[in-house]
Parts: sequence; C-alpha cells; structure tokens
Amino acid sequence: MITIDDFDTFPDFPIEGILFYDIAPILASPDRFREACIQLMPPPDAEVDVVAGIDARGFIFAPVVAQTLGVGMTMVRKKGKMPGVDLLESGVEMEYGSADLTVSAGGIEGRHVLVIDDVLATGGTACAVAEMLERGGAASVRFSFLMEIEGLEGRAALEGYSVVSAVIV
Amino acid sequence: MITIDDFDTFPDFPIEGILFYDIAPILASPDRFREACIQLMPPPDAEVDVVAGIDARGFIFAPVVAQTLGVGMTMVRKKGKMPGVDLLESGVEMEYGSADLTVSAGGIEGRHVLVIDDVLATGGTACAVAEMLERGGAASVRFSFLMEIEGLEGRAALEGYSVVSAVIV
Repeated sequence: MITIDDFDTFPDFPIEGILFYDIAPILASPDRFREACIQLMPPPDAEVDVVAGIDARGFIFAPVVAQTLGVGMTMVRKKGKMPGVDLLESGVEMEYGSADLTVSAGGIEGRHVLVIDDVLATGGTACAVAEMLERGGAASVRFSFLMEIEGLEGRAALEGYSVVSAVIV
Repeated sequence: MITIDDFDTFPDFPIEGILFYDIAPILASPDRFREACIQLMPPPDAEVDVVAGIDARGFIFAPVVAQTLGVGMTMVRKKGKMPGVDLLESGVEMEYGSADLTVSAGGIEGRHVLVIDDVLATGGTACAVAEMLERGGAASVRFSFLMEIEGLEGRAALEGYSVVSAVIV
C-alpha cells in the first residue's frame, strides 16, 4: 500500500506557493507502482466500460487500470493535440494555469467512464472533464486519483460522483 | 498482432504535410493494446533495468512494458515539467516543432535503459534522448517504438542501438 511518504515533495514548483508531489519514486519501483494501480481500482460493483486517462500523468496509470478491468482506454488531452472531427471540448480553470481539454466523442456515448488523473486539487479539471463526458452522452462518470489534496476541497466540488483517491493528504 | 491497419490516419495534422497516425483505436481495445505492448517488448536476452517513457504517448505503453519486465519506469518530459536538481537535459529537433527534454539523473546511472515512444520518424528525439541518457551514465540504451516511419530513416540515425518497432510503415 502506497502512502504520502512514497512521494517526493518540492516546494514552490512549478510556481511559488505550490507544493509539488512527485510520483517518480512510485514509478521507480515496480511493486509500489502496482500497489498504486490497485489503489486506483474502482469498487468491485462499479460499472466501467472505458478508462479515460488525463494527459500526461493520468496516461501512466490509466492503461494498467484498464487492463486490470479488461476494458479499453481513451485519452483526454489539451486542445490541438488530437486529430479528428468528433472531439468533445471543454474549458478548464486549474489550480495553476488553464487548459482546454478534448476527448474523442466516439468512445464516450453510452459508456460508463472511469476518469484517472494523478492529483485531485480544487477539482476544476475533473468537473470540466465530467461536464464534457456527460455532454458527450456518457452513461456514468467516476474518478480515481493517485493523490487528493484534502484542503482544496475537490471532493466537495465532485459531489454526486464516486471518487477514489489512493492517497489523501 | 497489431498492424498499420489498427491506426486511424489524419492527413495534415498537426501541420500540413504530416500524416498523423492515431493510436486511439489500439487503446480502445484491451486486446489490441495488450498485443501492442507485447510487440514493444525487447528481445528475451536484452538487459533492462528501467523503462523510460517519453511524454506523452510513451507514458501509455512504458508502464505496461515495465510491469511485464518487472522493472521500474522513469519519465522523459519537456523542460519545466519536472522538479528536481538532478535533471539531465537535452536539446531536440523533431519532425515538427522542437523541445528540450529532461529526465531525472537518479534513475539512470549504471542502468540498462529501454526507451519507449510512440513514433520513430527521423530519430531526432530518440538520438537526443540517447545522448542525454549516456551523458547521465546509462550502462546501455535501447529503444522500442509503436510505429516506425521507414522512409524517414530514423533507424539509420539510431545505428548501433537495438531498435524494436511494433509496426513499420
């Protein structure tokens, strides 16, 4: 079982006032990485048809969780990174910086979607992704995060959604 | 076994003259994704201590290959994305655009490194990553790519390195 001690911390990165939790030590150990992926798994009774990984660190965990569940994966990326005419788009305000995210609509309609990202902070990104997926006809949306920063109240912002956090700080 | 027909293609993306091969259909199928990861595996006699995934699509395949090999993973990211004082840096000229890449030196010295990325085009990124890893004391560097664009001669640029390509086009 991974805990907050498995992360490295860097104060004032990428900007002043932000304490950055680095996942590198978790990735460096195949056992810790596997444990982290287990902690990201949804409850056994959860219905999941597709796992949506958020660029870039969500991409690291989403495929392993998807393989464990026996389902496919889809990418949530910043606008301009993905081709296609069927892209859903969303405007996002994040803890620092901002980004417009896109996802291919084809894999979303009627599907139960598990969204995976590394950090739940204010929940701004997650809310925007949920809105985008629901607009695209997702049957349900749930979330798994590697780390939840409790003081920033992202869980409250995601009220009504199932939220799994591997580590809460 | 995945083939070139498993990719979607988009002409003139992200810029005119580039034919973009989209991995989305491979990710959407858990079986095809697993097959792709098997095709990325190095030869059975290859010595690999750590898998380096290149941001962002290398992040999708590197963890599964690393887990299959029973080794850890490290991230190769654009400059400014990773904290730390022990970062190796490299200048890169890519098929389109350019980027400075970084990797944490801690996981490289004395290690046999398997680098994973989605596309081998001219080999500019791969050469820059190899140079960076060797400067950081890697014991060896080898590569696996999901797709190799043969006409751009990246394999010649990587002469002397072991190169695995899941699909050659």
